[in-house]
Amino acid sequence: MTDNSRPARPVILGQNQYGKAENRVVKITRDGATHHIKDLNVSVALSGDMDEVHYSGSNAHVLPTDTTKNTVYAFAKEYGIESAEQFGIHLARHFVTSQEPIRTARIRIEEYAWERIETSDANSKFIGADEVKHSFVRKGQETRVTQITYDGSSWEVISGLKDLIVMNSTNSEFWGYVKDKYTTLQEAYDRILATQVSGRWRFNWTDDEQKMPNWEKSYEQVRKHMLQAFAETYSLSLQQTLYQMGARIINNRSEIDEVRFSLPNKHHFLVDLEPFGLKNDNEVYYAADRPYGLIEATILRDGCEAKIPVDLTNL
Amino acid sequence: MTDNSRPARPVILGQNQYGKAENRVVKITRDGATHHIKDLNVSVALSGDMDEVHYSGSNAHVLPTDTTKNTVYAFAKEYGIESAEQFGIHLARHFVTSQEPIRTARIRIEEYAWERIETSDANSKFIGADEVKHSFVRKGQETRVTQITYDGSSWEVISGLKDLIVMNSTNSEFWGYVKDKYTTLQEAYDRILATQVSGRWRFNWTDDEQKMPNWEKSYEQVRKHMLQAFAETYSLSLQQTLYQMGARIINNRSEIDEVRFSLPNKHHFLVDLEPFGLKNDNEVYYAADRPYGLIEATILRDGCEAKIPVDLTNL
Amino acid sequence: MTDNSRPARPVILGQNQYGKAENRVVKITRDGATHHIKDLNVSVALSGDMDEVHYSGSNAHVLPTDTTKNTVYAFAKEYGIESAEQFGIHLARHFVTSQEPIRTARIRIEEYAWERIETSDANSKFIGADEVKHSFVRKGQETRVTQITYDGSSWEVISGLKDLIVMNSTNSEFWGYVKDKYTTLQEAYDRILATQVSGRWRFNWTDDEQKMPNWEKSYEQVRKHMLQAFAETYSLSLQQTLYQMGARIINNRSEIDEVRFSLPNKHHFLVDLEPFGLKNDNEVYYAADRPYGLIEATILRDGCEAKIPVDLTNL
Amino acid sequence: MTDNSRPARPVILGQNQYGKAENRVVKITRDGATHHIKDLNVSVALSGDMDEVHYSGSNAHVLPTDTTKNTVYAFAKEYGIESAEQFGIHLARHFVTSQEPIRTARIRIEEYAWERIETSDANSKFIGADEVKHSFVRKGQETRVTQITYDGSSWEVISGLKDLIVMNSTNSEFWGYVKDKYTTLQEAYDRILATQVSGRWRFNWTDDEQKMPNWEKSYEQVRKHMLQAFAETYSLSLQQTLYQMGARIINNRSEIDEVRFSLPNKHHFLVDLEPFGLKNDNEVYYAADRPYGLIEATILRDGCEAKIPVDLTNL
Repeated sequence: MTDNSRPARPVILGQNQYGKAENRVVKITRDGATHHIKDLNVSVALSGDMDEVHYSGSNAHVLPTDTTKNTVYAFAKEYGIESAEQFGIHLARHFVTSQEPIRTARIRIEEYAWERIETSDANSKFIGADEVKHSFVRKGQETRVTQITYDGSSWEVISGLKDLIVMNSTNSEFWGYVKDKYTTLQEAYDRILATQVSGRWRFNWTDDEQKMPNWEKSYEQVRKHMLQAFAETYSLSLQQTLYQMGARIINNRSEIDEVRFSLPNKHHFLVDLEPFGLKNDNEVYYAADRPYGLIEATILRDGCEAKIPVDLTNL
Repeated sequence: MTDNSRPARPVILGQNQYGKAENRVVKITRDGATHHIKDLNVSVALSGDMDEVHYSGSNAHVLPTDTTKNTVYAFAKEYGIESAEQFGIHLARHFVTSQEPIRTARIRIEEYAWERIETSDANSKFIGADEVKHSFVRKGQETRVTQITYDGSSWEVISGLKDLIVMNSTNSEFWGYVKDKYTTLQEAYDRILATQVSGRWRFNWTDDEQKMPNWEKSYEQVRKHMLQAFAETYSLSLQQTLYQMGARIINNRSEIDEVRFSLPNKHHFLVDLEPFGLKNDNEVYYAADRPYGLIEATILRDGCEAKIPVDLTNL
Repeated sequence: MTDNSRPARPVILGQNQYGKAENRVVKITRDGATHHIKDLNVSVALSGDMDEVHYSGSNAHVLPTDTTKNTVYAFAKEYGIESAEQFGIHLARHFVTSQEPIRTARIRIEEYAWERIETSDANSKFIGADEVKHSFVRKGQETRVTQITYDGSSWEVISGLKDLIVMNSTNSEFWGYVKDKYTTLQEAYDRILATQVSGRWRFNWTDDEQKMPNWEKSYEQVRKHMLQAFAETYSLSLQQTLYQMGARIINNRSEIDEVRFSLPNKHHFLVDLEPFGLKNDNEVYYAADRPYGLIEATILRDGCEAKIPVDLTNL
Repeated sequence: MTDNSRPARPVILGQNQYGKAENRVVKITRDGATHHIKDLNVSVALSGDMDEVHYSGSNAHVLPTDTTKNTVYAFAKEYGIESAEQFGIHLARHFVTSQEPIRTARIRIEEYAWERIETSDANSKFIGADEVKHSFVRKGQETRVTQITYDGSSWEVISGLKDLIVMNSTNSEFWGYVKDKYTTLQEAYDRILATQVSGRWRFNWTDDEQKMPNWEKSYEQVRKHMLQAFAETYSLSLQQTLYQMGARIINNRSEIDEVRFSLPNKHHFLVDLEPFGLKNDNEVYYAADRPYGLIEATILRDGCEAKIPVDLTNL
């Protein structure tokens, strides 16, 4: 359709996508008096035959972003939310298969975890009730994320987490580095190593014919291996720790071929207490905000191709 | 000193205070291979005989804010950090008793909780080690706060928390309210009740002669009672739930005389799925950001005076 | 009504208030092709005879927060938005005079400024049009705020701003301060002075019989005097600058009796370049985040009483 | 060096980079009593022969992130800061040419604009001074950004801005779109169009032999054309407006070959005032937070290749 118009244009359209972002959906499932929550933030991005809406403003191929929002809420009822990944797969398949101009759908989801408020003690008798099963406290800690992309034939699922803050209070050193004329850093033989983990991992499930991973189990296991690798690595550099975190995941989870981490080195500087006649024996630290080291890398199963974008942070 | 100058001034100085805010101090205590963390954000505000620095810029009575920062770090070594409250008491006493012009010190502290990363499974054998005891993950969830004020003779300790997000997925109604010409709200007989708790509670410990409360134990117990009251109250209004949360604390914790809550009603609206031929049986909700209801109140032990400021939020 | 029940309660209700917070209202006024914007964030807090909703959950005295939201939008149409202050006065009067149980209304408003996008150059001919008068860019810079409180007989209006970041690159010193055993700071004879102004000023208009100030003109003039005082004061301490900023307002604006500032001292540290063989002649600075000095004070017209709360920051 | 070890690894290292992020540097230039500010946030990311630090923790090839920080501050003195782009070019060239293992350097810079505080009125006489030329107020509004990448032979410079909020109060429609079973949106013939512009543009300067663009002039002109295109486009969809914004830049600025925008459609919903007997004639709007439409596209000079990453937002 745009063949006629394009040759004359000195300015052409490249990659483009659109949709409704940050649809906040909370799904309550009632199993008698016991309730379950799924709390998601869903963003839809669609692309395909969309030249005309850019060139002339014709919306003839445009499913409104408002409709993509409605679909998110309707699907929460129609399909439930077994996992963020499963929910995103339903949505992506729908947009690509139901609208001819839409060739690719990318669904991004943030998930916020909740845990039950415990009420099973003497106080519960106060209301003469059994344990309450509909009361929750948001877990805090990391935000779980996933991105599902579907082009009508194959799937790409990249899951992960962000804002998980971890610290080793020992077993970290940093020395033996390059020294140039701008180097003033002193070598460290026992330092705090702390970071705010942003990680993404790509599943090798790409085809409806393959057995789908157990998304919930996978997340729990990846998180466990990642944290244990962080805790158990005697670290000579944050890069080494990062590599161990990724390798531990690849080695233990066959459903995952690629991992990328963006790890800020959240510096904790030992405070100089000597002016006050005090010795600071690795006890008192100043937690700095900025600047911070930023260590980023992809870890791959041998033979696999890297597909997670380099930038987990904004351009 | 300012007697001479004041009469001539058409503009006078009122309440004033100064100090270093947001000193981020992390204290590691090593009990052999087992480490413990205290992670605080400490703000110092001093007031007293400070007219001249405002009128003429003379700093003769001014202990620099940089010095108050140094003192925070030095005291972390000298006294350790048993609890945020105990640490704040050491600081406040020091400033008031060591500097004649300083008559009042107010120390505010935020505390971030950490929990251990568990490594006690088969994987630990990987490094042939016992369980790692120096690795932590930040707990997320609420930020614990405290404010200690000392004027040289008596103490005021107000502790609390913020950003604790809770939800009841049922047992909440809202009806029987006033209806005026601008009222369009439909009555609700089964709604989600969710809020982000900001709470403060004042201790009746005011004097060095009194037995000091166990600050850590008190916090844990107040938090438990507050959460249980939230969970166990069948709610006809958020005000009723708020009152129950405060009353449960007063009734169970004799060390506390006053509680104030600022509770945003984080609306979860039932999505209308009828246009899509679907029935929404209290399953699918839209979690709204703004506007939100904001319910605020003080709950007092009978006979006590309210001292917690009305505004937990900014003016 | 609550007389009977109160004596028996060991736990009583103190100050309380409720309403809808952060109602985002944008009002467009069309003067032919020339449009005008008012962009506000309005929060309503009502108090009065509200014991029962806390004690029993009875909403018989409760005008829903949803209704207060509707009223904000309806009043934007009915009264227009001449200024944030004038709009808040309409709202506060309405709630107190139309609902018997409501004795006090407090309206807080944030205002975001917009300026026109200039199109009056050759490019406009591209569309054969006169200058466009309906296109705006948000001004950024400070957020203007106001708080109107009405108890049925008298008014309190406190206006102000927040997040206005200013810097003097010279004419600031800091020396002659107290030195104790924790003092390490070096005296400074030419430093950067930067702060993020949070200021509030109270009008002496309290009565419908008085002539109402010109709110828009007053804001513009207060802001100008405050900025000029910041720029023109040769500063020996941030306290001195703060006092000058307040005094300049009181001396120039007869409608204002009280000013309070909360001024973080946003430290800009001269970077030590000597290790690299370079001299830093007050040229290269590191802008630090935390900690920061925090200087707060009230400035009063002589003979007036201070009413602005001490805490512009959260407890 | 890593040839021997690699074949045996089931897990390999992919793209990786490291450096110090968010170095806040403020440079004051004194031209007599007239001062000038450059206020930057500089992030360094280096990559090259870095396998060993990941595999074994050897830092033999690692220039510390602390050194990259020092270099930023030293270069601010050595080269000055003519523009963010020029400054980033100095830094990138240095890292790649001075350290053999470093093959690519990517410098990202945010720039915060300041404007002078005007003091040239009667009040200035108060201090018997000429106009003050060392006092500034931060401009607010957009943050200017740039990214410079150098691999030892060619340059890539992508500049842009974020957080520039714009609004058209009329001349926007949305109708003629696809309607499926989840579509409930009403067509709109006069709506508010508002967005928070995040834009990036790529320069065709890639080689030291080419004449370097005037970075400051270019930014100012791109911003002007972009704003005018936003203002002057009668919009049938945000996609159309986006295309016009990009095309206007490409058509007017020969130094730029590619533009990418990420434009949230910040919805302003007309409030239904009919329940209150009022007619809302495009006057009163509710400014919504989430969800929002998100429209993203690349605009290219014909014949050029797209290189700006699709994701200006985080994965």
